[in-house]
Amino acid sequence: MDTHIAPVELAKAYRLINHGPTVLVSASHDGVANVMAAAWACALDFAPPKVTVVLDKSTRTRALVEASGRFVLQVPTARQLRLTQAVGNTSMADDADKLRNCGVTLFQAGGGADPLVEGCAAWLVCRLVSEPHNQQAYDLFIGEVESAWADPRVFANGHWRFEEAGPEWRSLHHVAGGHYYAIGAPLSAHAEEDATSPPSSPA
Amino acid sequence: MDTHIAPVELAKAYRLINHGPTVLVSASHDGVANVMAAAWACALDFAPPKVTVVLDKSTRTRALVEASGRFVLQVPTARQLRLTQAVGNTSMADDADKLRNCGVTLFQAGGGADPLVEGCAAWLVCRLVSEPHNQQAYDLFIGEVESAWADPRVFANGHWRFEEAGPEWRSLHHVAGGHYYAIGAPLSAHAEEDATSPPSSPA
Repeated sequence: MDTHIAPVELAKAYRLINHGPTVLVSASHDGVANVMAAAWACALDFAPPKVTVVLDKSTRTRALVEASGRFVLQVPTARQLRLTQAVGNTSMADDADKLRNCGVTLFQAGGGADPLVEGCAAWLVCRLVSEPHNQQAYDLFIGEVESAWADPRVFANGHWRFEEAGPEWRSLHHVAGGHYYAIGAPLSAHAEEDATSPPSSPA
Repeated sequence: MDTHIAPVELAKAYRLINHGPTVLVSASHDGVANVMAAAWACALDFAPPKVTVVLDKSTRTRALVEASGRFVLQVPTARQLRLTQAVGNTSMADDADKLRNCGVTLFQAGGGADPLVEGCAAWLVCRLVSEPHNQQAYDLFIGEVESAWADPRVFANGHWRFEEAGPEWRSLHHVAGGHYYAIGAPLSAHAEEDATSPPSSPA
């Protein structure tokens, strides 16, 4: 599989999901791995980087996250549109061969055992920050990003390169019922070139 | 001001932010209103619809949210790029006339007193769901959406119409330092036309 992977410094890991893409969530425990799609994932902190993701109680992936205390968020591309829709609409409870049937191939990175999905644009490998009330009341899970990776053909030197990569590299932004938008054209508000703060900073 | 506004049924309110746009957060208390930008906002539940948003302790807007127990998330458009960047990089602590200087005009909707920003594409009017541990430990705020609104020129019948509206209507997706992407082209995974579940459902 044509997956290239390069480390992303943790201080810039939030940039991998700051633009709000739909992500794939993967986890494994005791020899079982699963992958689901989630539009409800978000950055939570810069350093150490943290993320939130909503995992419904009906999902098998959630059980693996709870059992292993780990998960991976990854950013699928337009080329993975059908894979993304498929893993989000098939349950391993109904199809034990779900991953193969959805076209998912897993790999490991950086010497860790966490399952990463081949062909994505970026990966955030997370340790679950246990918050039982949030998990039970809101299905809301917090992760601390331990390592971050990206395919340098679409994210390099701390910046997305969507405008230079081909259209098959665009991130996916789900609205509802299989209707997505790809990320579009760059717009600059003419701020400093490399300010590290998002627009959420002062105000 | 050329703001059109129509109610969005609460069951479809999540669709207004499901694609991950950077939002404006507004709140008011005791005669003071403020607006900030936040890339870290996300849907949390369908019914009743809930949202999360990260509000740094340094922000004046956060203090208004805590004091009033209410906030509004709204989706700015490409036409509001400079406004979005400006409210995210100016503090009312430094400029008491921040809103006017950033080009913000506020209005009310539906008989409520909450401050909405004119010219946006959509608005989610929220009641704060008090979770002191999340607010203190993670700067993470949960809101229950009490009413939702959209400009029918860009969101109608439960669907975004970015491909029909002009490019000035595109939502903004901040990466870092004033670099945004506009939302792009529609992609369909050929699922059912009107499934209400996002790709996070089974799996």
